[in-house]
Amino acid sequence: MYIVPEREIAGLMTREAAFSAVEQVFAAMASGDAYNFPVIREAIGHEDALYGFKGGFDQAGLTLGLKAGGYWPNNLEKRGIINHQSTVFLFDPDTGKAKAMVGGNLLTALRTAAASSVSIKHLAREDAKVIGMIGAGHQATFQLRAALEQRSFEKVIGWNLHPEMLPNLAKVAAEAGLPFEAVELDGMTEADMIISITSSFDAILGAGQVSPGTHVACMGTDTKGKQEVDPQLLVKADVFTDEVAQSITIGEAQHAVGQGLIQESDVAQIGAVINGTHQGRTSDDQITLFDGTGVGLQDLAVAASVVDLAIEKGIAIEVDF
Amino acid sequence: MYIVPEREIAGLMTREAAFSAVEQVFAAMASGDAYNFPVIREAIGHEDALYGFKGGFDQAGLTLGLKAGGYWPNNLEKRGIINHQSTVFLFDPDTGKAKAMVGGNLLTALRTAAASSVSIKHLAREDAKVIGMIGAGHQATFQLRAALEQRSFEKVIGWNLHPEMLPNLAKVAAEAGLPFEAVELDGMTEADMIISITSSFDAILGAGQVSPGTHVACMGTDTKGKQEVDPQLLVKADVFTDEVAQSITIGEAQHAVGQGLIQESDVAQIGAVINGTHQGRTSDDQITLFDGTGVGLQDLAVAASVVDLAIEKGIAIEVDF
Repeated sequence: MYIVPEREIAGLMTREAAFSAVEQVFAAMASGDAYNFPVIREAIGHEDALYGFKGGFDQAGLTLGLKAGGYWPNNLEKRGIINHQSTVFLFDPDTGKAKAMVGGNLLTALRTAAASSVSIKHLAREDAKVIGMIGAGHQATFQLRAALEQRSFEKVIGWNLHPEMLPNLAKVAAEAGLPFEAVELDGMTEADMIISITSSFDAILGAGQVSPGTHVACMGTDTKGKQEVDPQLLVKADVFTDEVAQSITIGEAQHAVGQGLIQESDVAQIGAVINGTHQGRTSDDQITLFDGTGVGLQDLAVAASVVDLAIEKGIAIEVDF
Repeated sequence: MYIVPEREIAGLMTREAAFSAVEQVFAAMASGDAYNFPVIREAIGHEDALYGFKGGFDQAGLTLGLKAGGYWPNNLEKRGIINHQSTVFLFDPDTGKAKAMVGGNLLTALRTAAASSVSIKHLAREDAKVIGMIGAGHQATFQLRAALEQRSFEKVIGWNLHPEMLPNLAKVAAEAGLPFEAVELDGMTEADMIISITSSFDAILGAGQVSPGTHVACMGTDTKGKQEVDPQLLVKADVFTDEVAQSITIGEAQHAVGQGLIQESDVAQIGAVINGTHQGRTSDDQITLFDGTGVGLQDLAVAASVVDLAIEKGIAIEVDF
């Protein structure tokens, strides 16, 4: 079996490879070739940690396994290591034997960024010029960097609960040679494309703060109770997601569905748009919304991709297991 | 992190170490220091495989992780490798980082054997002389070998659906210097201790085929629909298990509880007997029954034990992960 340590991921994995892996597995999910297992997520009662497993099987890509790990909120302060810790384990679907073990921390950031980028490619207007960011933490920089590769954006605008973090976004914009402007939430009407990536438990973005024709990617809501946008925005928008079952229970759509404003059947799989079985965006004044909940298959897809790269470059550690 | 390949387990792990690890974790479960996560078990639609995860956390032993793997029914015929394939992954509960990866095949056999042995130590009569085996497959030899260490048995009797497999049991008996006798099921009344370890979906052992004072360990029922004994035996017996929730849903007690013959409250944790908070056996003519369903914590316990041994003996492969 092969081992790819966390420290090797940055040198191996590209945004392009992550994008391609995530796009393919979303397509496989929509065509019925890939599915996610029920998620295990446990508050273990030690170090306030949340720990669990996200598994799945992609019969098209022959990728089987899980991401294990979670959130250790005291890591940074107590030990100087990041709070999110995860590891991906891949298995040979022909035999059940362990096939690879891969550091999952950077991969998680890359696959989450790839998901909103896939949604931009397939749902944002071709002529989108202004991208708006809600959230300016570490993960927001990943989302923005990946998003900027999908359209010829000319300006980045941003809002964050703690404005002192906005320079994180300004820095990524500058790298791409783009101007950055801090805005109030009402200023988001200027955006053609909005990404929200926060850990909010209350709606931030109002339905009136989104202009016709905008594509919105809600990337922060992955737990019951979390929320980034006004449920009325989901009424106005055509809603897409990675996995419908997660979207309506732990994703952004949980609120609109829970309040009876939209139904499960109003939420479409992004994979169907990729496959061409759903029309996706059909007009320039339509609001599209992608509810990115995060699925195990994304993790497996990017991990499988990085293992191939690591073997090719002779970096994978081979262990006779 | 440390890696202990499957090929090293046989040279490292002893029945004594497995017994001790399983006894301790059963005790921790009963005292509320350790718990199992919900089990994931998926028919993946490829190679007729069943794949899944059994995880848990033992706060007393600070053992966190999962066993991943399952059953690949074509392995032996197609590839000459065993059908049950599993791997145990341990995590550092203080940080969430991967700590060890351990071959889980032999460990699974040893921890299952240890479970019935723990039940014998705590529930069988001290003067038990005749041990009866129902089932004579590969796993039956593990159960018998471990059981023989718990009491001064003088004779082994056995029954199997396919009698041509009974020499498996006779061989283990001979190793221990004991006579073996093949019996009909009615002959099981001679036994002071009975282990059933089959893959049956119908009751094999009748309630009238068990004498007063016998301890019965049902080790084969780990799935909805499986069954080894007449539900009336659970009415006559004092019933113990590794985990009550599994016992009444996928264990042997599923049938007696499902038919309203006994209630959940009639099933006690073996760990409570180990801890001394349940009296266990109180008379020489009482029938005790242990419903061994198999929990993730058993796998983690034996894996943690083998990692310690492997490090101590310099056999663990250390990988900078």
